Amino acid sequence: MLIAGTFLLAVAASLCAQGPRQVALVVTNGTVVTMDAGGRIIADGAVAVDGSEIIAVDTAATIQLQFRGRETIDATGQVVLPGLVNTHTHAPMVLFRGLADDLALMEWLNSYIFPAEAKMVSPEFVRAGTRLAALEMIQSGTTTYADMYYFEEEVAKATKAAGLRGVLGQTVIQFPVADAKTPGEALTRAEAFITAYKGDALITPAVAPHAMYTLDGPTLTATRALSKKYGVPTLIHLSETRDEQKTAAERRASSPTAYLDGLGFLGPGVLAAHGVWVSDTDIGILKMRGVGVSHNPESNMKLASGTAPVPAYLRAGIALGLGTDGAASNNDLDMFDAMRMASLLHKLQSNDPRVVPARTALEMATMGGARAMGMDRRIGSLERGKHADIIVVGMSAARQTPLYDPISHLVYVTRGDDVRTTIVDGRILMRDRRVLTLDETAVVKEARAWADRIRLAVKKVDPIVTPR
Amino acid sequence: MLIAGTFLLAVAASLCAQGPRQVALVVTNGTVVTMDAGGRIIADGAVAVDGSEIIAVDTAATIQLQFRGRETIDATGQVVLPGLVNTHTHAPMVLFRGLADDLALMEWLNSYIFPAEAKMVSPEFVRAGTRLAALEMIQSGTTTYADMYYFEEEVAKATKAAGLRGVLGQTVIQFPVADAKTPGEALTRAEAFITAYKGDALITPAVAPHAMYTLDGPTLTATRALSKKYGVPTLIHLSETRDEQKTAAERRASSPTAYLDGLGFLGPGVLAAHGVWVSDTDIGILKMRGVGVSHNPESNMKLASGTAPVPAYLRAGIALGLGTDGAASNNDLDMFDAMRMASLLHKLQSNDPRVVPARTALEMATMGGARAMGMDRRIGSLERGKHADIIVVGMSAARQTPLYDPISHLVYVTRGDDVRTTIVDGRILMRDRRVLTLDETAVVKEARAWADRIRLAVKKVDPIVTPR
Repeated sequence: MLIAGTFLLAVAASLCAQGPRQVALVVTNGTVVTMDAGGRIIADGAVAVDGSEIIAVDTAATIQLQFRGRETIDATGQVVLPGLVNTHTHAPMVLFRGLADDLALMEWLNSYIFPAEAKMVSPEFVRAGTRLAALEMIQSGTTTYADMYYFEEEVAKATKAAGLRGVLGQTVIQFPVADAKTPGEALTRAEAFITAYKGDALITPAVAPHAMYTLDGPTLTATRALSKKYGVPTLIHLSETRDEQKTAAERRASSPTAYLDGLGFLGPGVLAAHGVWVSDTDIGILKMRGVGVSHNPESNMKLASGTAPVPAYLRAGIALGLGTDGAASNNDLDMFDAMRMASLLHKLQSNDPRVVPARTALEMATMGGARAMGMDRRIGSLERGKHADIIVVGMSAARQTPLYDPISHLVYVTRGDDVRTTIVDGRILMRDRRVLTLDETAVVKEARAWADRIRLAVKKVDPIVTPR
Repeated sequence: MLIAGTFLLAVAASLCAQGPRQVALVVTNGTVVTMDAGGRIIADGAVAVDGSEIIAVDTAATIQLQFRGRETIDATGQVVLPGLVNTHTHAPMVLFRGLADDLALMEWLNSYIFPAEAKMVSPEFVRAGTRLAALEMIQSGTTTYADMYYFEEEVAKATKAAGLRGVLGQTVIQFPVADAKTPGEALTRAEAFITAYKGDALITPAVAPHAMYTLDGPTLTATRALSKKYGVPTLIHLSETRDEQKTAAERRASSPTAYLDGLGFLGPGVLAAHGVWVSDTDIGILKMRGVGVSHNPESNMKLASGTAPVPAYLRAGIALGLGTDGAASNNDLDMFDAMRMASLLHKLQSNDPRVVPARTALEMATMGGARAMGMDRRIGSLERGKHADIIVVGMSAARQTPLYDPISHLVYVTRGDDVRTTIVDGRILMRDRRVLTLDETAVVKEARAWADRIRLAVKKVDPIVTPR
């Protein structure tokens, strides 16, 4: 025992002599908002990263004693936050951003979005759109996003190249679309996509049955079986509009939720986007089945879809994340906007300014989203052992002055452009506003070239020049 | 006749020989969104300014033939827009930004805002707060704002020094406040303020009776008489909350609007902030009396006040502007946020995505605001003879790519930080994000020093450090 003790002392002494351990990256001197279960905020804090993992979160002084980063990011006067989690989007639709607004839903879909998609969507379109979306997400602090679109393997390639984390769902829908003539073909594509990406460090492949009103029962069941076979998530639109609710009542004599539950569709691993038109019974089913929900306040407002019962979801303890939806109905991918909107909207609709306080909105955009996607053991907070998905957020603009409470400022006055540095899986994707994994000029140029083609496709006359 | 004709030809020849006329400033090569009655947008446009006035708005080519600016601002790839008009705020309250959020209205007022104001508000506080607010407004493209606060002469001094245009109302309220022990004293202060600033190029002095529920009838009547005596605006809070409506019903057996109308209070020159809880009858009265209304969607949401009937105001043809309200209930002064929120909120509440289209929101933030303040002959659009209040807005961020329609982007994806250049009355206040009329570092430092005092005053423990 004495010998063992002496040996240990010798090891400790040797460690001390070596000084701090060298690691890949230290982010230091910032206000670290951990979003851990205790809600810990460290005024002068630091995060140490090695490989793709967070290995320590502590005061800057403690971290400095223990670790020396090969790279150091000085976050003085800034907030260090877990990367934001966008639980619902259609990344390539950024190419349709602002193409058509302020229209009735059916005119928007039938005169603009569907014709544009029918004529435009191709692997090249999806690649260009995902690059632009990835650029915007990196610039605004989103580090993980859930996507539903066509040619999802192209979304995956572009996402991986940009260095973002994605839960990417290959769409299955009843009618012929750009990448599949039949739902059977879409299922085959989905299976190929899953096997290609299963186990990838950044990409979680998923199946994305579009919605209960655009798929028949057997296809819905087949998509879910495919998800279960490979243990991958299922992404679906659920109860977005009143029309969907009516359709379910007419065709299925049921709510969309109850109908899906009757199919045995609902369970852990299902992420339902929108959940606007749900009853208390529906909420009970979603909770019981362990379904995650993605709340998309801006899209729901812009398309006049309705107000999701967020306070009821929170009371029920449902895993609830925030999403932007596609940029055609938002019109950006800024999760800070989504937080602010969620907080303001539900105060108004509840007649109670205490509803969805800033911390709850921030929780939804981080741990809530991680939970909704079943990834809360790996992302969503700054804790030892989690993936190193970290953002550094500026906090000294005039509109952020003075600073009483960083949580309030993150939700009520901060926007994507305040993000200075974005790190995913230990890799620095943007440093002090310079994106390192994408050529911003080239991405923007490519997107503009696509827009020229889209303008022609929808035969929309450029409204810029008005005759005098 | 022949001689006269020859003479005119000689004059014309001499003008040609001289080449373009030299003027103070030309803003050129931008997409000029004029907001004039025809909704003219000039793709490659320019605005010529001499002294404090716009002297021409045309294509860049035409302007170049006619004018040469001593200063030239190249707006290539950017939008040139009339400066935004914020129709309701309390500028110095930026010092309370984020001090207390997510609280019931009475707790917010009684535990935070009122104690902080009682202990803090002084000429020095108002000066420091207005400087910070002016910095934020210049940075986010607001060129004219309406204000209601105490020590309004200090607001005026700081606003004038910053170079902004202001309609500034000295508050009159029944109970003792920092700058007046009685409403009589407040009226005396208001009259002194009016006589000091009447005729000023930038400052329009005004009287600001706080609200019908915080003033008795005789004082309300006296404030309006004072406004009329000097021909200056009256700024008042009207029908902000359901409580105000109840109070009016109980005390006056009337709606706030009908009560004020019974006093002979309402008429042109009155600018009513909020107008949330109004009936169709009230709207009819406001229209008949020529009262302007300021819609403040973010504040109304954050405080859960309710939703103003904006579509009804628009149908009635009421002069309707947008406002941010004070930063304690918003929490910023960004008019781009206000536009976006107005558009999204009323689509949702009307169940119709066609309601408040982007152009209407932009109209409210420019000409609508100018009309609501009775200044539409002087500001609100880029037209010859109007004051040169102009902003240049960047339009090439990733989140603004691609660009199909500048009006859509201005409302749905642009924010205050995209404003590159701000010009008021022909004077450049910010050029390419550098504020020229305020020392940003000093203003922020001064605000932080005030925040330290405010923190102690409300005995609020700094929540930054959480014990582990």
